[in-house]
Amino acid sequence: MRNATELASRAAGKVSVPDSWLNLATQIPWQLPLPHDANGQVETRERLSQIYSEECAGIELLEGQYGNEPFISIPGAVIDEYKKYRPSLFQRAHGLEKRLDYEGRIYFKREDMNPTGSHKPNTAIAQAYYARQQKLKGLVTDTGAGQWGAALAWACYNQGLDCTIFMTRNSYLAKPYRRYLMEISGGRVFASPSNLTSRGRALLNADPNHRGSLGIGMGEAMEYMSELADTRLALGCMSYYAAMHQTVIGQELAEQLAAEDVEPDILVGCVGGGTNFIGFVSPFVPRSEGAANSPAKHKRPRLVAVESANIPVLTKGTYNYEYADAFGFTTQVKMYTLGREFLPANIHAGGLRYHGKSPILSLLVHKGWIEAVAIDQDEAFAAGKLFFESEGILPAPESAHAIAHVMVEVEREKEKGSVATIVFCLSGTGYLDIQSYADFFGVIQ
Amino acid sequence: MRNATELASRAAGKVSVPDSWLNLATQIPWQLPLPHDANGQVETRERLSQIYSEECAGIELLEGQYGNEPFISIPGAVIDEYKKYRPSLFQRAHGLEKRLDYEGRIYFKREDMNPTGSHKPNTAIAQAYYARQQKLKGLVTDTGAGQWGAALAWACYNQGLDCTIFMTRNSYLAKPYRRYLMEISGGRVFASPSNLTSRGRALLNADPNHRGSLGIGMGEAMEYMSELADTRLALGCMSYYAAMHQTVIGQELAEQLAAEDVEPDILVGCVGGGTNFIGFVSPFVPRSEGAANSPAKHKRPRLVAVESANIPVLTKGTYNYEYADAFGFTTQVKMYTLGREFLPANIHAGGLRYHGKSPILSLLVHKGWIEAVAIDQDEAFAAGKLFFESEGILPAPESAHAIAHVMVEVEREKEKGSVATIVFCLSGTGYLDIQSYADFFGVIQ
Repeated sequence: MRNATELASRAAGKVSVPDSWLNLATQIPWQLPLPHDANGQVETRERLSQIYSEECAGIELLEGQYGNEPFISIPGAVIDEYKKYRPSLFQRAHGLEKRLDYEGRIYFKREDMNPTGSHKPNTAIAQAYYARQQKLKGLVTDTGAGQWGAALAWACYNQGLDCTIFMTRNSYLAKPYRRYLMEISGGRVFASPSNLTSRGRALLNADPNHRGSLGIGMGEAMEYMSELADTRLALGCMSYYAAMHQTVIGQELAEQLAAEDVEPDILVGCVGGGTNFIGFVSPFVPRSEGAANSPAKHKRPRLVAVESANIPVLTKGTYNYEYADAFGFTTQVKMYTLGREFLPANIHAGGLRYHGKSPILSLLVHKGWIEAVAIDQDEAFAAGKLFFESEGILPAPESAHAIAHVMVEVEREKEKGSVATIVFCLSGTGYLDIQSYADFFGVIQ
Repeated sequence: MRNATELASRAAGKVSVPDSWLNLATQIPWQLPLPHDANGQVETRERLSQIYSEECAGIELLEGQYGNEPFISIPGAVIDEYKKYRPSLFQRAHGLEKRLDYEGRIYFKREDMNPTGSHKPNTAIAQAYYARQQKLKGLVTDTGAGQWGAALAWACYNQGLDCTIFMTRNSYLAKPYRRYLMEISGGRVFASPSNLTSRGRALLNADPNHRGSLGIGMGEAMEYMSELADTRLALGCMSYYAAMHQTVIGQELAEQLAAEDVEPDILVGCVGGGTNFIGFVSPFVPRSEGAANSPAKHKRPRLVAVESANIPVLTKGTYNYEYADAFGFTTQVKMYTLGREFLPANIHAGGLRYHGKSPILSLLVHKGWIEAVAIDQDEAFAAGKLFFESEGILPAPESAHAIAHVMVEVEREKEKGSVATIVFCLSGTGYLDIQSYADFFGVIQ
């Protein structure tokens, strides 16, 4: 069984909070496609600055240092906030290994214990900080299950900013605890489609019970934001900036693996937009075959992105420019997509209900550096329950997709008679999703 | 700001999972009063073994090693389970210090990240293990807010035992997430008063909306258990065994404080039955003035037990023998109590709604080695929200009582112009209590 050394390699002097974000776009042999306007031209700085904060607009366009520097310094005030909860724990899943009767090792990186219970504060803190630096009044965003909305509301509160959140109606109704969490932090939360925007009203008129989608929420946020002074859009996943901020996860992981002298064979993470996954695998991407900066001493782990089989963007979508929102208000980004009007099935893992995937993830999947697989909701809930039983940790339904795929890999290894070292990202806690587990397992209500 | 060293003194080689429980009854200069039967005689081993598992009955009567040995070895299988989540984190609350503008230091011990989100697995695992060793079929218990019920259901599942839980009706209705968590683990949960017992039926007949209490739930559990073969009662708080199992908290804390070279001035914890508090302060009790085993090199920290002002057992109750349950089915224990028929107010911190306090806590309060204070629910919720804002961690309403008192101590220090080092026990997560926060802060529902 593990001991304190194994349990917490967040050990004194061994692992530190990163002082830089990894600028992955500079570490791959292809140009990251830039956002396009309606005419297929690269967006101007002027327009992007009307959508995002100045800093985030610069990141999206890979301007200045973002086009060249492999590491971007994290502002001291952001590091101070990170230090409230980072470095996050890195643990070995002895209980799961035993339950699966697996001779190999399974580790996980814990983003479930972060403020508001997911990986989202890693970028929410940075986005709120830059908005405050720019003296903005507030941020507007969309959220699905509510991981992102809760993180942004919390981060905005701490920066003295207003925060308005369009929450997919489906999740607004099914996941009240996450909404309450946003409201406790002073966030203003509206079920999307809402009556606050012209597009929302049109959808509600057509169907008063419209369940919404992340794409619709983003479109409403965009429309609503554009009518407010000194307010900008904040994106939890589809932007490059959100992915870059998440690289603190992978950088810590690389240090924690090195401290334990572990070389991973497979890294597994769930993908909604894809930022927790990109952040998680970021330092391992350049090691991939043919990477310019691949350190020779490291073998190349397989990087497996797990999406919902109900929203098979990477496994069945097309790779092309498409609007990030449902209405075509935002920029177009090059990504795997099912089309901006795709209305996802009513699954419990609200964070996976999006028609596209982040451009950096999409590019790396397209180039074959990242594998994509799809997992059914049934498998995910069963895996989440099994993890709770064996480790005492209830994963968010989104993260449970990653665990379900870990189990697939374990079965393959057992069939082959081999042992791979598998590491997965536990991106969020399930304590705020117990209603979904209860619904799924037919608990009496 | 803190760095990794400060954040996680759960550091490699520094702090380990304890291999023994601290048998506090042997470390104080007074005899812990033993349980009595209806006639005021010390309970017999025969009768107690019909209530609790053999092992737990032995602990309650301080038999054999329990009457003599300062440390009791923890079975290897229990240590293996502890190692899934222990040692628990010990953190400095920089965010709270800053928010309170306090020059002194505030630390906290995190029991909120344990399986099912509270300190309760520390004893649930041991109780389920002993029941399994004895080849029992199952355990029956009562729970208030559900921290205890969820932990026992989880522990029983892992030992292949049935688990039946009488949950205070008030909490059963107000805290469905904790109930779902029990049911996901295969626990059978009934709102108490229930129709399963004669006493429950009588109360429901008199008042179909009876809100219940921990004392009523315990009485129902006792009646229901007595009709089942190979089944015993499990207690999450009022027993000495539950308090003893919780001493892993304090032992780790003592190591973690030593590793950081911190001498605490004040230890603060919330008390329902009192076991998280006793476990938390256990190694510091013998240091108190006049203690036979007080290590001279350590100063004596103040030990402050924080109860709910709505259930002022320690601050307004009497110290005498009383039944642990509402009906007089269980044993009588010597404790501070408001009387077994006391029906607590309908507060959100369900874990604090009990008419008595654990005998070991009561004795130490009676002798003046532990201070008792009472905190209003309003102060507790305000403190919980402030902690969430400043640290990103939402405490259980129970634990928020401790934080509220930390704030009282901070104000005193600031008035005096002095700085005390304060450590509190974060006994549970608030993610399963968001409904209570939402109710309290008037979030739109």
